[in-house]
Amino acid sequence: MSTPLNIAVLGCGFMGRAHSNAWLQVSHFFTLQHKPVLKVCCGSSNDPAKLNKFREAWGYDSVESDWKKVIDRKDVDVIDICVPNHLHHEIVLAAAKAGKMVVCEKPLAMNVAEAEEMVAAVEKAGVANMVTFNYRRVPAIALIKQLIDEGRIGRPYHYRATYNQDYTISPEVPQGGRALWRLDAKVAGSGVTGDLLAHSIDTAQWLNGPIRRVVAHTETFVKERKHVDSGKVEPVTIDDACMFLATFANGSMGTFESTRYARGRKNYNTLEMNGENGSVFFNLEDPHLLDFFRYADPISGKKVEDHLTGWQEINVTNFEHPYMKNWWVPGCTIGYEHTFTNSFADFLSSLEGGPKFEPTLRTALSTQRVCDAVLESAKKGSWVEIGG
Amino acid sequence: MSTPLNIAVLGCGFMGRAHSNAWLQVSHFFTLQHKPVLKVCCGSSNDPAKLNKFREAWGYDSVESDWKKVIDRKDVDVIDICVPNHLHHEIVLAAAKAGKMVVCEKPLAMNVAEAEEMVAAVEKAGVANMVTFNYRRVPAIALIKQLIDEGRIGRPYHYRATYNQDYTISPEVPQGGRALWRLDAKVAGSGVTGDLLAHSIDTAQWLNGPIRRVVAHTETFVKERKHVDSGKVEPVTIDDACMFLATFANGSMGTFESTRYARGRKNYNTLEMNGENGSVFFNLEDPHLLDFFRYADPISGKKVEDHLTGWQEINVTNFEHPYMKNWWVPGCTIGYEHTFTNSFADFLSSLEGGPKFEPTLRTALSTQRVCDAVLESAKKGSWVEIGG
Amino acid sequence: MSTPLNIAVLGCGFMGRAHSNAWLQVSHFFTLQHKPVLKVCCGSSNDPAKLNKFREAWGYDSVESDWKKVIDRKDVDVIDICVPNHLHHEIVLAAAKAGKMVVCEKPLAMNVAEAEEMVAAVEKAGVANMVTFNYRRVPAIALIKQLIDEGRIGRPYHYRATYNQDYTISPEVPQGGRALWRLDAKVAGSGVTGDLLAHSIDTAQWLNGPIRRVVAHTETFVKERKHVDSGKVEPVTIDDACMFLATFANGSMGTFESTRYARGRKNYNTLEMNGENGSVFFNLEDPHLLDFFRYADPISGKKVEDHLTGWQEINVTNFEHPYMKNWWVPGCTIGYEHTFTNSFADFLSSLEGGPKFEPTLRTALSTQRVCDAVLESAKKGSWVEIGG
Amino acid sequence: MSTPLNIAVLGCGFMGRAHSNAWLQVSHFFTLQHKPVLKVCCGSSNDPAKLNKFREAWGYDSVESDWKKVIDRKDVDVIDICVPNHLHHEIVLAAAKAGKMVVCEKPLAMNVAEAEEMVAAVEKAGVANMVTFNYRRVPAIALIKQLIDEGRIGRPYHYRATYNQDYTISPEVPQGGRALWRLDAKVAGSGVTGDLLAHSIDTAQWLNGPIRRVVAHTETFVKERKHVDSGKVEPVTIDDACMFLATFANGSMGTFESTRYARGRKNYNTLEMNGENGSVFFNLEDPHLLDFFRYADPISGKKVEDHLTGWQEINVTNFEHPYMKNWWVPGCTIGYEHTFTNSFADFLSSLEGGPKFEPTLRTALSTQRVCDAVLESAKKGSWVEIGG
Repeated sequence: MSTPLNIAVLGCGFMGRAHSNAWLQVSHFFTLQHKPVLKVCCGSSNDPAKLNKFREAWGYDSVESDWKKVIDRKDVDVIDICVPNHLHHEIVLAAAKAGKMVVCEKPLAMNVAEAEEMVAAVEKAGVANMVTFNYRRVPAIALIKQLIDEGRIGRPYHYRATYNQDYTISPEVPQGGRALWRLDAKVAGSGVTGDLLAHSIDTAQWLNGPIRRVVAHTETFVKERKHVDSGKVEPVTIDDACMFLATFANGSMGTFESTRYARGRKNYNTLEMNGENGSVFFNLEDPHLLDFFRYADPISGKKVEDHLTGWQEINVTNFEHPYMKNWWVPGCTIGYEHTFTNSFADFLSSLEGGPKFEPTLRTALSTQRVCDAVLESAKKGSWVEIGG
Repeated sequence: MSTPLNIAVLGCGFMGRAHSNAWLQVSHFFTLQHKPVLKVCCGSSNDPAKLNKFREAWGYDSVESDWKKVIDRKDVDVIDICVPNHLHHEIVLAAAKAGKMVVCEKPLAMNVAEAEEMVAAVEKAGVANMVTFNYRRVPAIALIKQLIDEGRIGRPYHYRATYNQDYTISPEVPQGGRALWRLDAKVAGSGVTGDLLAHSIDTAQWLNGPIRRVVAHTETFVKERKHVDSGKVEPVTIDDACMFLATFANGSMGTFESTRYARGRKNYNTLEMNGENGSVFFNLEDPHLLDFFRYADPISGKKVEDHLTGWQEINVTNFEHPYMKNWWVPGCTIGYEHTFTNSFADFLSSLEGGPKFEPTLRTALSTQRVCDAVLESAKKGSWVEIGG
Repeated sequence: MSTPLNIAVLGCGFMGRAHSNAWLQVSHFFTLQHKPVLKVCCGSSNDPAKLNKFREAWGYDSVESDWKKVIDRKDVDVIDICVPNHLHHEIVLAAAKAGKMVVCEKPLAMNVAEAEEMVAAVEKAGVANMVTFNYRRVPAIALIKQLIDEGRIGRPYHYRATYNQDYTISPEVPQGGRALWRLDAKVAGSGVTGDLLAHSIDTAQWLNGPIRRVVAHTETFVKERKHVDSGKVEPVTIDDACMFLATFANGSMGTFESTRYARGRKNYNTLEMNGENGSVFFNLEDPHLLDFFRYADPISGKKVEDHLTGWQEINVTNFEHPYMKNWWVPGCTIGYEHTFTNSFADFLSSLEGGPKFEPTLRTALSTQRVCDAVLESAKKGSWVEIGG
Repeated sequence: MSTPLNIAVLGCGFMGRAHSNAWLQVSHFFTLQHKPVLKVCCGSSNDPAKLNKFREAWGYDSVESDWKKVIDRKDVDVIDICVPNHLHHEIVLAAAKAGKMVVCEKPLAMNVAEAEEMVAAVEKAGVANMVTFNYRRVPAIALIKQLIDEGRIGRPYHYRATYNQDYTISPEVPQGGRALWRLDAKVAGSGVTGDLLAHSIDTAQWLNGPIRRVVAHTETFVKERKHVDSGKVEPVTIDDACMFLATFANGSMGTFESTRYARGRKNYNTLEMNGENGSVFFNLEDPHLLDFFRYADPISGKKVEDHLTGWQEINVTNFEHPYMKNWWVPGCTIGYEHTFTNSFADFLSSLEGGPKFEPTLRTALSTQRVCDAVLESAKKGSWVEIGG
């Protein structure tokens, strides 16, 4: 018999939808003791029809429009936070105080100060917690981690990351409101740095260890946009684009870049690592593929024959690949949404004696430190050391 | 308020799982009047634990081990047939007689004679029916159909299809049993012809119209394999590989090939069309991509500038692409399973006044005719005309 | 001190140019005893200006407009035949009789009967001879041969070849004349079969051994074209497209196709081989790349780790790759013309005690046999055995 | 009648070979008044056999071992400098004084001070001059320039460049000597910055205009290597890797990186530009390809239909592509060496009334300014403005 785990999802937007789906799918594809139950979804009281439609689509038991009431409910085990960034801090503090498990969308907070309090809160409360840096559970990225752990990259020299999109090029795109709050710094904290580079930084530090120093440059290409809330043209306060150089504690060096002005790039979250024994390249637009250059075997030290070296494209759908034995058969891909399903599977497994779940809020704090340093560097025009 | 549609899935294997998932997911991602309810799953009485695990995983109301009892149930609206091929005929006839809607896995039947009776049965009963040639609903393949309908291919000259895999190269792979019945002609009817080329033929005739003549060659590379049921080494009776030439009614010509001996190919279902105005290439191993060569605009006749021509890789995840507005955002892929979800969405929509659903059993009969002609040609060593 | 080798090139068109260049370049990049000297070029007396421009561009010592005079010259060692196909037979016979070395463009002859006489002539005369199936010397294709010889493909199951172009789709393209004689069967012998599939067949038999049986279909999409010579619209007598199935003596099976109606394909000469230990794919439009799927080591039998398998793209520009130590450095490609340079290097080397040169006229005769069988099969509508 | 142009090539290494070939090939493939004559090659007196072999291979009239004598010769028109970087300055000054045309390999000089004197010298002498930033004449890169000029990129937002290789990862690779002088700062000036990033910077400024500010980081991964000249282990003084951020005068932003430690990258000279109307990506390892994302037509402003957008791979071998009408036919690539042939063709054309040749020494000086600023920034740890 399975154990029900009552989920409250705060926020009925894109992320609320992705999380709801994953909570339902995790029981279909993974053998777990806990069975998530969609107990309550919480959305704005301004649009009750939308909220009810969301409830019906996903089969929630009930709806709420005040997140504080959700936290007060005894029949909720997990507070899953899918609301805009400026609300994360207050909700996490309340949820932790109420002894709820906390699942929080990224970026964790508006800044390091907030994030530190949030970490303190969940750790004091001793509640299980996670930040949904879901791309760690793209099978191809998890495979990179495995290759690193197996020594197949070896001593790392270079790390490169981009997260490029193109959806805000037109000056006609407004800022604010329900759909475009990510363009409003009061709600989002920052632009591409917190939204996209946070992913890249989380992945980078997971794969390649701590970042020590950064120097950054940010740009806001469109200086003013109509604001949905005020109806008036207002200054754009976020970073449209951000690029930075980094050095890692392990001696390797890295370049990072993110923008929403890269015409033709939709979800171009890429990473490349070059090491002594091999290299990898990944691109989220082709999420089932991993490009791997195999140079030398980490155990025998034997090199691949010179006439046989080449970048190989691994179709990461074999049973032997991370997560894939839970899905279909070789050659059959899984979709975007299962980065969340895989994440929740690991989270539930950690509640059942499986490996400790990562990334927690504490781990996300270290990402926040880099994000803050990047923004500070861009502002000051100089290198910034990462504290913490 | 939605209308429940009670589903009985016969077969709890790979396809039973894929269908169960799609019946559940269709309500989450498409706005439909009908809401599928997983009423009963039917599996072998030999392994009740497996059957119950399947029920629990997918939330079925009940289980049965005798498909005839399922058909007798008043609380079932749809009989969804996910059992081996040699059982399709009898079940379809019974389901149609009972007035149930029929969903049937491919290939439709063991041969044309069976298929004709099945078509007659569902048409006499007047029941909605479909064969799950699910790859028509890969968004990229549906996009090809749209491009053709828009005139972007123009007069077609060439069609090429392959469906290559590599999982039976080892002579140690047995035949028969629950997992490998596709290697046993008594259960499967044929080898790659019915299993894989049936997909290629369905897609080809959908996109390029009727095939008129074929000449084929088949091969069985491993002549004997241990049979799971008997425990003895027995002759292999299926075609391991099949290749054929075809001419289409529209004057174009085609090559088709399928094998399970193409080392490195996992689900290499490809198609290429070359026409006067443009060309397309698709590969199911990268299902979100469509390669498109745009030469001339079908309406204006204007050619692309000579220095700008090139094959373009369309990442078929834009809102404007078939089915994609129902899923995530540009750059976010959907997985293998949603070829079924999209299929069921269209099927349900057809019950609600939407476009007539294709492919029906009648359409699948035309595919069966080509399959039979291919096998006959291989046997006789000569060209065979397609009847019908 | 090097030994001069006096070359006469017959034909000043595209191939005459490619050969002239290669004769000059071979001494720059390969260490050889023989040093080719461009002694005489022979072209039509109708256009002396063109002929003289050709002479000057390439630095020929002299010009001729009658090929028979060229053969009579004592100061010529090699007759290099770059004229239309219908002239090959007579010239080869005369050149052999005169004791000249013979270099002949493909296809060797108009048919097997001619080809047999040509082989007999050169063998009786005992003159060194070659047919410029130059694609054997694409480094990536030569690498395939090496991989096969090393056992890295292992038992072969499948062979696939295409040679697709698109330059004759427009009905406005005329036939005949100096530029488009390949569309006139009286001059070319056949269409894509002799022009393009001859390459594919030569490569296939080199890599995979003799073809035993074929069944073919040909098509002429545009039935009439203006003829350059007559100025009138005349029936098109060549095959615009040809596809055939083949079985090889080694038990593997193959598909072949060629067309000039594949919109977007320019020089799409591809081949794929699937074997027990590995697979390869090559495409002449990306001539420096070889896709290789490595499954098992031929000596140890050790399989590549399951999570590391994938098609690898070998950039065939390492020093260890065929011919490449003679060119630049890794990552620097060579161009189309050096398939001829590499060919002449091997031919000259064979004169100096190096490995016996292939393909000779005798080898090209075996390709001619397959071409003739393909055309016969298409005509008769049945399988044809390859004689010889 | 053509006009002979007497060439003296200084340096018989890799570049001497590439230049010699291009001087010979330019007359074969381009119609020009000037016909280069290989008059004299100049190499080290330490190895006369090598020098004579070089002379014979390329057909030079004579050899010299003292470059000053070469400059004194009346029968030399062009001094083509293919010797290590630390010699460029003195030779250019002498050649200019002697009124010779100057062709100089990149990087132009050891530093800006040298470069300024060199520019002054050639400009004072009024001699035609060029620096062989040969990659401008890769047809695909020239096509990018054309696309930009046609408005197909539109307002630029982002520029990205890498030039990555992997040939010095092993600490066993020595420094110095004839082959590895690029690892010795006394001879090379700098490491990857001058050798590889100079190319990237030249291309970037050509395509995207002046760079205004940079912030850089360099690294020397292997701190000591055996020196070929001294035979002793000595500190490595060059930059093994360099990365920098840049802002351009046109308001766009850029990332640049180069290394010889990117396992699996051989000649990975890439660039990407993102603009309002379109984007391009190029990779020198696949030099005949250009990836182009077409979003909107620059004249009509009409957008590509949403369901048809995608990155297209232009096979830059059409007659309509830069330089390609001079070579073969569509689908036939040219090799690395013809970046030099195309360069010399344009240089000679400029002598004959064609477009003014770029890049001259003056242009190369602007590249040198960026290189120096990059190295200064890396040393100081701060942003540096580009002077000039």
